[in-house]
Amino acid sequence: MKKVNIAIIGTGRMGSVHTRNLARAIPEANLVALCDIRLEVAQALADELGVPRVVRDYHDLLADPSIEAILIATPTDTHAFIMKDVALAGKHIFCEKPLALDLRSIDDALAVVEKAGVKLQVGFNRRFDKSFRRVHDLVASGEIGRPCILRIASRDPEPPLPEFVRASGGMFLDMTIHDFDMARYQIGEVEEVYAIGNVLVAPFMAELGDLDTNIVTLKFKNGTIGVIDNSRQAVYGYDQRLEVFCANGVALAENEREDVVVKAGKDGYHSSRLPYFFMNRYAPCYVEEVRQFCECVRDDKPTPIGGHDGRMAVVLGHAAWKSYRENRPVKVSEIG
Amino acid sequence: MKKVNIAIIGTGRMGSVHTRNLARAIPEANLVALCDIRLEVAQALADELGVPRVVRDYHDLLADPSIEAILIATPTDTHAFIMKDVALAGKHIFCEKPLALDLRSIDDALAVVEKAGVKLQVGFNRRFDKSFRRVHDLVASGEIGRPCILRIASRDPEPPLPEFVRASGGMFLDMTIHDFDMARYQIGEVEEVYAIGNVLVAPFMAELGDLDTNIVTLKFKNGTIGVIDNSRQAVYGYDQRLEVFCANGVALAENEREDVVVKAGKDGYHSSRLPYFFMNRYAPCYVEEVRQFCECVRDDKPTPIGGHDGRMAVVLGHAAWKSYRENRPVKVSEIG
Amino acid sequence: MKKVNIAIIGTGRMGSVHTRNLARAIPEANLVALCDIRLEVAQALADELGVPRVVRDYHDLLADPSIEAILIATPTDTHAFIMKDVALAGKHIFCEKPLALDLRSIDDALAVVEKAGVKLQVGFNRRFDKSFRRVHDLVASGEIGRPCILRIASRDPEPPLPEFVRASGGMFLDMTIHDFDMARYQIGEVEEVYAIGNVLVAPFMAELGDLDTNIVTLKFKNGTIGVIDNSRQAVYGYDQRLEVFCANGVALAENEREDVVVKAGKDGYHSSRLPYFFMNRYAPCYVEEVRQFCECVRDDKPTPIGGHDGRMAVVLGHAAWKSYRENRPVKVSEIG
Amino acid sequence: MKKVNIAIIGTGRMGSVHTRNLARAIPEANLVALCDIRLEVAQALADELGVPRVVRDYHDLLADPSIEAILIATPTDTHAFIMKDVALAGKHIFCEKPLALDLRSIDDALAVVEKAGVKLQVGFNRRFDKSFRRVHDLVASGEIGRPCILRIASRDPEPPLPEFVRASGGMFLDMTIHDFDMARYQIGEVEEVYAIGNVLVAPFMAELGDLDTNIVTLKFKNGTIGVIDNSRQAVYGYDQRLEVFCANGVALAENEREDVVVKAGKDGYHSSRLPYFFMNRYAPCYVEEVRQFCECVRDDKPTPIGGHDGRMAVVLGHAAWKSYRENRPVKVSEIG
Repeated sequence: MKKVNIAIIGTGRMGSVHTRNLARAIPEANLVALCDIRLEVAQALADELGVPRVVRDYHDLLADPSIEAILIATPTDTHAFIMKDVALAGKHIFCEKPLALDLRSIDDALAVVEKAGVKLQVGFNRRFDKSFRRVHDLVASGEIGRPCILRIASRDPEPPLPEFVRASGGMFLDMTIHDFDMARYQIGEVEEVYAIGNVLVAPFMAELGDLDTNIVTLKFKNGTIGVIDNSRQAVYGYDQRLEVFCANGVALAENEREDVVVKAGKDGYHSSRLPYFFMNRYAPCYVEEVRQFCECVRDDKPTPIGGHDGRMAVVLGHAAWKSYRENRPVKVSEIG
Repeated sequence: MKKVNIAIIGTGRMGSVHTRNLARAIPEANLVALCDIRLEVAQALADELGVPRVVRDYHDLLADPSIEAILIATPTDTHAFIMKDVALAGKHIFCEKPLALDLRSIDDALAVVEKAGVKLQVGFNRRFDKSFRRVHDLVASGEIGRPCILRIASRDPEPPLPEFVRASGGMFLDMTIHDFDMARYQIGEVEEVYAIGNVLVAPFMAELGDLDTNIVTLKFKNGTIGVIDNSRQAVYGYDQRLEVFCANGVALAENEREDVVVKAGKDGYHSSRLPYFFMNRYAPCYVEEVRQFCECVRDDKPTPIGGHDGRMAVVLGHAAWKSYRENRPVKVSEIG
Repeated sequence: MKKVNIAIIGTGRMGSVHTRNLARAIPEANLVALCDIRLEVAQALADELGVPRVVRDYHDLLADPSIEAILIATPTDTHAFIMKDVALAGKHIFCEKPLALDLRSIDDALAVVEKAGVKLQVGFNRRFDKSFRRVHDLVASGEIGRPCILRIASRDPEPPLPEFVRASGGMFLDMTIHDFDMARYQIGEVEEVYAIGNVLVAPFMAELGDLDTNIVTLKFKNGTIGVIDNSRQAVYGYDQRLEVFCANGVALAENEREDVVVKAGKDGYHSSRLPYFFMNRYAPCYVEEVRQFCECVRDDKPTPIGGHDGRMAVVLGHAAWKSYRENRPVKVSEIG
Repeated sequence: MKKVNIAIIGTGRMGSVHTRNLARAIPEANLVALCDIRLEVAQALADELGVPRVVRDYHDLLADPSIEAILIATPTDTHAFIMKDVALAGKHIFCEKPLALDLRSIDDALAVVEKAGVKLQVGFNRRFDKSFRRVHDLVASGEIGRPCILRIASRDPEPPLPEFVRASGGMFLDMTIHDFDMARYQIGEVEEVYAIGNVLVAPFMAELGDLDTNIVTLKFKNGTIGVIDNSRQAVYGYDQRLEVFCANGVALAENEREDVVVKAGKDGYHSSRLPYFFMNRYAPCYVEEVRQFCECVRDDKPTPIGGHDGRMAVVLGHAAWKSYRENRPVKVSEIG
C-alpha cells in the first residue's frame, strides 16, 4: 500500500495531536517532517515519535518535492496565507478550522487552492464521530421521514483563557462554528439565523465583547428548522448532544460517558461525568479525519469536507454575530 | 376532615377526567353535581360514578348555596363569561386552560374574579408533574447555580383534527401555551420571544393558517435564555422533556416510558415507546392539581396557579404568533 | 355490567390495600363487607371508604348468600382453615400468599376447595406487573428463541422486624417465594434447586435461624437454568429486576424509578432512587390481580394463578431451605 | 525514560494484538523481536510494524542478553515449558491465560519462575478495564459497605469452532476462567463452588462433552456469596456485566455500547448492539496490561497479576467441572 508523504506545520495543541496520530495510528501516511517557529517544540516531538526531519521555516517544506501533502495547524490568522503558499507549491492541504476569521482571506485562499488544483480538507473533526455519522446516515436513508427539527446542545466544560478568546473571533466563530458545520452536515444549507446570548458564567467575556451562553435558531433552505445552544461552562463535562427529529421518528446522539459504572446508595443512582474535553471525546475523529484525507490524496478522490464547507461555517458565524448585535433574524445571503 | 363541595361544568374530554378524579381519587372533595348542555352525557357519567345531581344549565348550580367551588371544563370560548358568572355567585373557580384566546375577555373576567374575592386556579397540569417539580425545586434551591439555558422539547404524538385546530387559537396558543407556562414556572417572567415554524407533517395546517412544527426562543427578565421546540407528530409517543442548564450543573426531566422492558437481539436494543398522550402521561397531575385546589379552598390559601399565570401564557402565545408573522423578536410588553 | 359482591377478611397491611382498591378502583366489584377481629380497624376503614357492613367473625360473612367471593388477607397461619370454611360455604376465594407454610395444610385446603368447586386465586401480585408480563409474552412468543438463563435480582429496601420474621417461614418462604412463582411464570416447572445464603446485614437474623442474603440456582424441567438473588437490605430502594436470556436475544425488565429527573454536576450524573417498597412498586398489580379475579368470578373463567401455583411456590421454598441446610442440590420431588 | 526490551513468542490471534500494541502504543517498551514457528506470519507482522528481528525458534531469543522480557502468546499447552525456559534464561515473563490446563504443569513452571526470581504476569486483561477497576476501587474504599452479593453476566456473541473447543479445557477453563479471576479480583478467595450447565444453543458442544450455558455459584472466604452466568451465544453482542451488591449500596459496570445513537419510531426506542467481541470491548485493556507489565519490569515492582492468580483461576475451573459432573458443591481445597 502506497503511503502519502505528509508534513505538519504547527506543533501546538492541535498540531501535536495530529503528529502523534500520523506517527502512530494512520498507516496510510508517512510523516516526514514537522515545522514550528518554536523549533525546539517540534524537535522534542520529532525525537519522541521518530519523525526524521524538523524545520523552522515552512518554506523549506514547500521546496521538498517528496512531500505530497501538508497539514496546517498554526494559529488561525496564518491559515490563509500558508494555504496559498502550500497550494502554489502544488501540495495537498489539510487545514485546521476556521480557515480564517474574515471572508476576504478565505475567498482569496480558496481561489488559489482551486486554481492550483490541489485538494483541501478542513478540520471539522466532529463529522467523523461514529454516532453523529450514524445519525446522518439514518436520516439520509429516509427511514424516519423528512427532518423537521434539528437540535444541538454543545457545551464546553470550562471557559477558555481571555488571551485565547481575544483572537478567537468570539463564541459564534470559535465555538458555534463546529455546530454550524454539524447543522449543514446533518440537514443542508441554512437560509437564515437568529441568535441570542448572554454573559452568565464568565464575567470577563463581557469586557471582551464576547458571550458565554447562546442560542441560535436556524431556518434551512429545505424547510427544516433548527436550534443550537452553547455554553462555555458545563461543569459535568463536555456536553455534546444532537437530535434530528423527523416526520416518522427521531435520531439522537447522546453523550458518551467516561465509563459505564453506576453506583447506587441511599440518595439514588450515580453515574460518571462526561469526558472532560474535546481532545478525549473526539480522539478517534482526529485520527479518522486525517486518515481519510490521506486516503483521498492517495486515491485521488475528493475530500469529505472542502473549501465551501470551511467558508460556510464562517459565514454562519458572522451571520450569528450580526443577528445578535442587531437583534433580528439575518439571512445568510446578507453575509456572502 | 372537611370536604369541599364542588361541581363540574362541562363533561367532555377534560371534564370527564376531572369527574372521575373528583369522584374517586380526591378525598378533599365532595363532588355534588355535574352540568352539561348535553344532559345525557353528564347523566351517564353521574350514574356510573354516583354523582347525586345533574343539571343542563349551569345557573342552577350558581343558585345552590351548598356548592363552594366550580370546575369549568367547557369549550374555551365560554370560559370567560362562565368565570364571571361563577365569581359573581361567590364560588371559587378552577378553570381549564386557556382562560380565553383574547386578552380583553381574560382581563374582564379577572377583574370580576378579583372584585368578587373568589379563588381562581388555571389548569396548567404539568406544573404538578413530580419530575418537573423536582427540577424546579432543584434549580430554585440554588444548588446548581443560576439558570442559564432552559430547553423544552414538547411534541404531540399526532396532529389534532382540523375542526379542533380551527377553534384552538393555533399552535402557539393551543400547544406551546403549556410550555410557556412551564417556562415561567421554571425560570420567571419572559421579556422577549422569537418564533419560527413550518408545516412539515400535516399539510391541512397550512390551509388553516396554522403550523405543525415550531421553535420559540425566549429571553427572560433575569437574563436566562431559553428555547422551546414543538411538533404535532412524534410517532414514538408524547415527547415531553425539560432541561434547565445552570452555571454549576444541569437538571433534566427525561421522558417517562410505557414500561421498563428492554429487548436485545441481533440488531441491538429495543425499549418501549412513550405513553401515547397527555391523558396517560399526566394522569397523576390532573388529580393533584384539583386536589391542591380543593385544599386551597378548604384552608383558605392562595392557589398555586392564579389569574396572572393564566393571562401571561396567553400573552406569550400572542407574542409568538406576532413574532412568527413579522419574523422579528417581539417584546412581551408589545402584547400587554 | 354485573358486579361481583365481595367481602374482605383481614384489614391489616395487605387487607387495607385491597379494601381501598376494591372500594375505588375495581368497577367489576361491589365491596359489601369487611371483617377483622379488631373490629374498630375494619370499622374505621369502612367509614372512610363507605363500605356498608363490618363484622368481627368471618362466619357471619359465610352465612350471607349475597356474598359471592371472599378475599382472605389474614395472617398466614389462618389462611388454610379460613379457605376451607369459605370453600364449604360455596364462595370463591382470593387468598394472599403463601397459602400456608406447611404442605399438609395446603393440601387439605386445596382438596376442600376442589371438592367445593369454587374458584381460588393466590395473591402473587408480580405476575400482573406490565413489564414482567411483557417479558413473559415476548419469551412465550418464541421471537427470541428458547430460554437459556433466567436471572432475577429481588431485594428489599430494609429488613423486616424480628417479630415478623419469626412467623414468616424464613427468607425462602417469605421473600424468595415471590421469585419462585415468577420463575415458574416465566419458564415453567423447576426440577432441582440449590441454595446458599448468609447473614451479612441484619445480625438478628442469625439468632432467629434465618438469612438476609441468598442465591438460589434452579434447574428447570425444560433444560433452562436460572438464578435468583435476594437481599433484605438494598438501601437504594426496592430492587426488582428480571432477565430471560434466550438463544436469539434477551428480554429484561429493569427497575422503575421514583421519577425521571437527572441532575449532573462536577461529580457526575445523579438520578432518583427506586420506589421504596412493594406497596409503591407494585401498586397497579394489586388492583389488577383482584380485578382479574372478579372478572373470572363474574364470567366463570379459571383464575390466572390457582392452587397448584400457590402450592408449588411453597414446595420450592422448602426445597431451598433443605438445600441450604444440607448444602446440596435438592430435587423438587423430594419435597412433594 | 528507559524502555524495556521485549520480545513476543507466538504471533497468532492474541500475539498479533500484543505486537501491534507494543509497536505503537506502549512507550515503556522497545519491541525487539518476534518469534513464531510459522516464520512467515511473524515476518509479515514485523515488516508491517518495523520490528527489527524475527526468529522461528524461541531459544534464539533466550540467548540474547539484550532482551529483558518475553511475552508468551503461544497455544496453551506450550505455556508451561516455555515459561520454564524463559525463567531459566533470566527473563521476565508476561504469559497469556491460562497458564496451563493441568495444575502439575502450572506448579512446576511456577516453582522454576520463583527460583529464577523473574517477574511473571498473567494475561487476565479484564482487570485493566476502567469500569471494572472503578467498581473494585469503590467497593474496596468501603464507601458502600461490605460486599454481600457478586453477580457477573459474561456471554460470548457466538460459539467458538469445535477444533478450538477441543483443546480449550472446556467452558469452565476457557471462558468462566476470566470470571473466576474477576471474582477473585473484586471479592477475594473462593471457598466453594457449585456449577450447573447445559447445551442449549450449540449442539456440537454435547458431542465434545462440553457446555454452552452455565451458572456457577460461589461462596467466598469472607462470607460474600456470588454467581456467574455464562453463555456461548449472546446474539446482541459481547455481554459483560458486573455487579457488587453491598450492605450500603451497589456498584455496577454496565455494558459498553457500539455507539451512543438512539432511534425512536412507531415501535419504540432502538439503540446499538454491544461491541462484537473481546478484541473490541477490551482493546484498551490489552494495551494497559502490557504497559503496566513493562513498568513493573522497568521499575522493579511486583506485577499486578502473579502466578498465584494464574493458578487459582485454573483451580476454580477444575472445581467447577468437578461440581458440574458430580452435581454437588465442591470445596476449592478439594482441587489443590
